[in-house]
Amino acid sequence: MSSELLTGIAELTTHDGPTPEASSRLTDAALVVEDGRVAWFGAAALAPAADRRTDLGGRAVLPGWVDCHTHIVFAGDRGAEFEARLAGRPYAAGGIATTVAATRAASDDELLVAARRLRAEARSGGTTTLETKTGYGLDVASEARLARIGREAADTVTYLGAHLLPDGIDRRAYVDLVTGAMLAAVLPFVDAIDVFCEAGAFTVDESREVLLAGREAGLRLRVHGNQLGESGGVALAAELGAASVDHVNHVSAGDVDALAGAGVAAVLLPAADLSTRQPLAPARRLADAGVPLAIASNCNPGSSFTTSMAFCVATAVLQQRLSVAEALWAATRGGAAVLGMDAGPDAVGAIRVGGPADLHVLDAPSAVHLAYRPGVPLTARVISGGR
Amino acid sequence: MSSELLTGIAELTTHDGPTPEASSRLTDAALVVEDGRVAWFGAAALAPAADRRTDLGGRAVLPGWVDCHTHIVFAGDRGAEFEARLAGRPYAAGGIATTVAATRAASDDELLVAARRLRAEARSGGTTTLETKTGYGLDVASEARLARIGREAADTVTYLGAHLLPDGIDRRAYVDLVTGAMLAAVLPFVDAIDVFCEAGAFTVDESREVLLAGREAGLRLRVHGNQLGESGGVALAAELGAASVDHVNHVSAGDVDALAGAGVAAVLLPAADLSTRQPLAPARRLADAGVPLAIASNCNPGSSFTTSMAFCVATAVLQQRLSVAEALWAATRGGAAVLGMDAGPDAVGAIRVGGPADLHVLDAPSAVHLAYRPGVPLTARVISGGR
Repeated sequence: MSSELLTGIAELTTHDGPTPEASSRLTDAALVVEDGRVAWFGAAALAPAADRRTDLGGRAVLPGWVDCHTHIVFAGDRGAEFEARLAGRPYAAGGIATTVAATRAASDDELLVAARRLRAEARSGGTTTLETKTGYGLDVASEARLARIGREAADTVTYLGAHLLPDGIDRRAYVDLVTGAMLAAVLPFVDAIDVFCEAGAFTVDESREVLLAGREAGLRLRVHGNQLGESGGVALAAELGAASVDHVNHVSAGDVDALAGAGVAAVLLPAADLSTRQPLAPARRLADAGVPLAIASNCNPGSSFTTSMAFCVATAVLQQRLSVAEALWAATRGGAAVLGMDAGPDAVGAIRVGGPADLHVLDAPSAVHLAYRPGVPLTARVISGGR
Repeated sequence: MSSELLTGIAELTTHDGPTPEASSRLTDAALVVEDGRVAWFGAAALAPAADRRTDLGGRAVLPGWVDCHTHIVFAGDRGAEFEARLAGRPYAAGGIATTVAATRAASDDELLVAARRLRAEARSGGTTTLETKTGYGLDVASEARLARIGREAADTVTYLGAHLLPDGIDRRAYVDLVTGAMLAAVLPFVDAIDVFCEAGAFTVDESREVLLAGREAGLRLRVHGNQLGESGGVALAAELGAASVDHVNHVSAGDVDALAGAGVAAVLLPAADLSTRQPLAPARRLADAGVPLAIASNCNPGSSFTTSMAFCVATAVLQQRLSVAEALWAATRGGAAVLGMDAGPDAVGAIRVGGPADLHVLDAPSAVHLAYRPGVPLTARVISGGR
């Protein structure tokens, strides 16, 4: 058991309070890591002794990103489709089928190596907790394989058998599969269930059926909703008290009230919004109504091929009008709340004495620089579980 | 004299033709660097022998960025002002005065070290040619000092004595200074003259007077125009046949026609647009009208504190609707044209046999990934003059 004192912290953002505003933003701080956990933090002048001492030289420290929405287990490149879409073809969920075909054709090892490469890229940008989803398998064996590989590549896996209706199967039969044999096959590996509730994918009634089956199996509920239009996904998430509804580009006043009333989080995916040229989700309106927010990368090869949470945070601040404090919270503790990982001794997304030492050290004196210096890679060091 | 063969180039973008569309985008290519210059490029199968051979393993190569608009010689941090502005205070040119005070108070060495740090950061993101401006001095000695330091930190310096009317001096007297003693003092160090033609800064008539004095002294003409409103800067740039007008957020149909008719380039500064919450410049409209375009970072501590040309290119593609080919051209050869560095044996912004080996190697199989993977640092290696 050895301890390390990190000193020279110009700004320490902890997210240890109940809201962004009530959390600490200490200046001239220090922090002690012991056995992978935060043993102490506070004013540098009061720092205790430790086995080792590292001077961060005036850098800012914040909790590592918690990226609560990605799809990193896949094969194939869709750069050409991306370029074509930008030249005028609109985004359609059908593009997912391209990745399904490539993913089914890849070996376990190819999928795991590629997913771990993206996981490492995310980590090098400050992400210390990352969710991934199934959904590029769409048959029982393929979904179970993706869930198992996801478990090896990420911290938590969400089951998204209801990503798209595959060719050659009747809708009714596919929903039965998703809620029956496929669910049973993925269950050992997953913590949550998700459904793409959108025109071209699954209806509100189908989505409800999928989610209720997941709840019955003890899973957390997530919804892809209201990305391409007012799909009813937001209302469904509120109705079922889901952990989150993700995308939310198109929301009515009633949707916003429903989310706020139910305490359902909205997950903002700004890189996807920009990459598909959807209107950016109305983050300010949601925040003002009291809807809990998270920010995630939605890393996937079709609609958002980035692991950069810093890019998402900068976009949320510069273009979606969140304050820096709100955006940092949404990209750390907000994501942890969506994943159900924000409480207990192993809670992530915040810096707390006794909690995991998941720390993001910036080459900047303040986390404000994440928005002030868009595009500049500011990650100086990433500490995950003290390592 | 030693030569290096770069092979394993999945995609080589050269910009050696007269337009983005007419330029080469070779696949499975190779390139030979000899004595700091490009000695050969073409199909990998036809590559000649060289002293050394480096396999780039399927990476994309393009010309290094030519960042034709920055202000990297300054002192002080305006992160707090940035955060306040995002919380509701609009951007005003007056903030420049904060940087002027800090810059005047800094030593030569402090300024050079800070500027070189930003230059190195820009280089690590793929920028091989970078312009900087004076304009944080605003008196004869201070402007001359910034011009001299700029010459050491950057590849070319633009004189921007007419950045802001400093306190305590009459408008007429200041314009006389800018066009008289100050111009004479900076002249040994600068290649171009620029003026902030905007409400709150200089009028069209004052700007014309400044630019004509610069032309008389043999300098290229640049204009900061139409950033905060229809300032007349665009029309002035067209009238004088300036090398560029930069910002161009607010343009009339007449402005667009005037630029196209005069062949004056519009410099897009998307990071500044986002950081000041101005509408993004109408790049698609300008391109469709035949206006030559450049993309630059506008790196400065007030309105755009980034060196990331990749961020600017991604924004131009995703949000300003340029094609990837148009944006890459604008950020390389387009910038070189604005700086008058796109012709002759030392021309930059393109990969040509005999020209400088300024190369940007990406951790991606295609330069499309610069927009497809926003925020991900993709720069694998930067070669500048062969090094």
